[in-house]
Amino acid sequence: MSSTSKNSNTIRMKIVLIGAGNLATHLGKALKEAGHDICQVYSRTLASASVLAQALGSDATDDLTLLADDADAYVISVKDSALDQVPATACMGRGKGVFLHTAGSIPMEVFNGRVPHYGVLYPMQTFSKAAEVDFSVIPTFIEYNDDVAEKTIKALANSITQRVYTLSSADRKYLHLSAVWACNFVNHCYDISSKILAAHNVPFDVMLPLINETARKVQTLSPHEAQTGPAVRYDENVINAQTQLMADSPTWQKLYRLLSESIHETHKGQ
Amino acid sequence: MSSTSKNSNTIRMKIVLIGAGNLATHLGKALKEAGHDICQVYSRTLASASVLAQALGSDATDDLTLLADDADAYVISVKDSALDQVPATACMGRGKGVFLHTAGSIPMEVFNGRVPHYGVLYPMQTFSKAAEVDFSVIPTFIEYNDDVAEKTIKALANSITQRVYTLSSADRKYLHLSAVWACNFVNHCYDISSKILAAHNVPFDVMLPLINETARKVQTLSPHEAQTGPAVRYDENVINAQTQLMADSPTWQKLYRLLSESIHETHKGQ
Repeated sequence: MSSTSKNSNTIRMKIVLIGAGNLATHLGKALKEAGHDICQVYSRTLASASVLAQALGSDATDDLTLLADDADAYVISVKDSALDQVPATACMGRGKGVFLHTAGSIPMEVFNGRVPHYGVLYPMQTFSKAAEVDFSVIPTFIEYNDDVAEKTIKALANSITQRVYTLSSADRKYLHLSAVWACNFVNHCYDISSKILAAHNVPFDVMLPLINETARKVQTLSPHEAQTGPAVRYDENVINAQTQLMADSPTWQKLYRLLSESIHETHKGQ
Repeated sequence: MSSTSKNSNTIRMKIVLIGAGNLATHLGKALKEAGHDICQVYSRTLASASVLAQALGSDATDDLTLLADDADAYVISVKDSALDQVPATACMGRGKGVFLHTAGSIPMEVFNGRVPHYGVLYPMQTFSKAAEVDFSVIPTFIEYNDDVAEKTIKALANSITQRVYTLSSADRKYLHLSAVWACNFVNHCYDISSKILAAHNVPFDVMLPLINETARKVQTLSPHEAQTGPAVRYDENVINAQTQLMADSPTWQKLYRLLSESIHETHKGQ
């Protein structure tokens, strides 16, 4: 993995943005703020394309065959499952610009044979439409198939963030898997915690200092060093007692057992 | 659950601290800073009792029969499994002071029949000896068996933190379970994430902005609202592909499946 530093001299590019979801919205705004011209926004429904197009000063379309032909970059930011279909239509007859997608788990090769210059720009962050995002600190992983794509994708990435890394599709799959653990599964643990509290009339905000400290610790310690709790020493009294407290949720019980065993496996003999 | 506000007029108390681990160390320092007199520190080994006693200006002992008889409070901060044994010896012949322990998952009743005044003071945070801790923001859950214990334990708690809640032993068990989810299991997810990255030569620090944002989101959204990722919509392509990436770790595969199913259960039909 190699990293490049932020380029202060942004080359203004003409961009077609395909997608109008959370990531497309935040990315489109960051690209516009960096000085690029988002000439067009596509979405499956004209209504959602129009909302984002208006915010970006762009045209809106719901027809992939009507994309501009003369953009420097086509940024496809749609849900993973749509990356089976969208490139086939979007790429057709548009060989000059660089095509790229923004998905963590989809290989660059979805563009292979469709256009000459292509790649990936994956900003690894969790996006909600409501929350403001500071793109400049988001680690962003890029990949490109040739020198033309490299130049364009590096310029785009460096114009919006200081943390740009080149990473192959093969390694990016593991990065995305790792992000599912550190974000999606972590959040589900928060959710189970909040539901247990709610059942006992304790507000979730009592848990926030612990959540914050747990996240803060791994800024300086490895998660392995930071691990605490009954599972580290496999304290069966606590583990059995806590399992019984979740008698009305067999799924949580199974998860609790398996997480405890997994923690113990990692720490035993230390 | 009821809460009381921080008392600015600390009543100086004479305290015996039983235990010298992470929590005992941080709690002892916070109590000393609040103006109390930690007259004695007990630990199973004189060496570790002495280290903490020196920091607190106290006497050290490794003999529970030699505890001071005239303390206002006896704070037992030992590992959960030792709470079977320690109170029996520590309480013997010391009926004037208030006895309390600091454990999330142990009922107050371990003191029942041993001394007249007793209770619990559970600061819900994850402690490492190295990291500095601001006790004043730690939610602290107290319980007491009578008016004498109530007065002493409330005064102690209010002298070190602004967030004091009264909670029964029965509900505190669920609070502790909830903390295991929000801290210990969350940290294990970080650990698995870091191990997957390490196997592909990606430094864990690329994951920190995502970890921070995931924790930050639940300060304003419920975890249920904040949930993202392939499991919400049960995207089987991604789930199957990611499961296969962990072929060398059957435990992680099982956890991944079960966490994904649990997320989907929670979100289906929405």
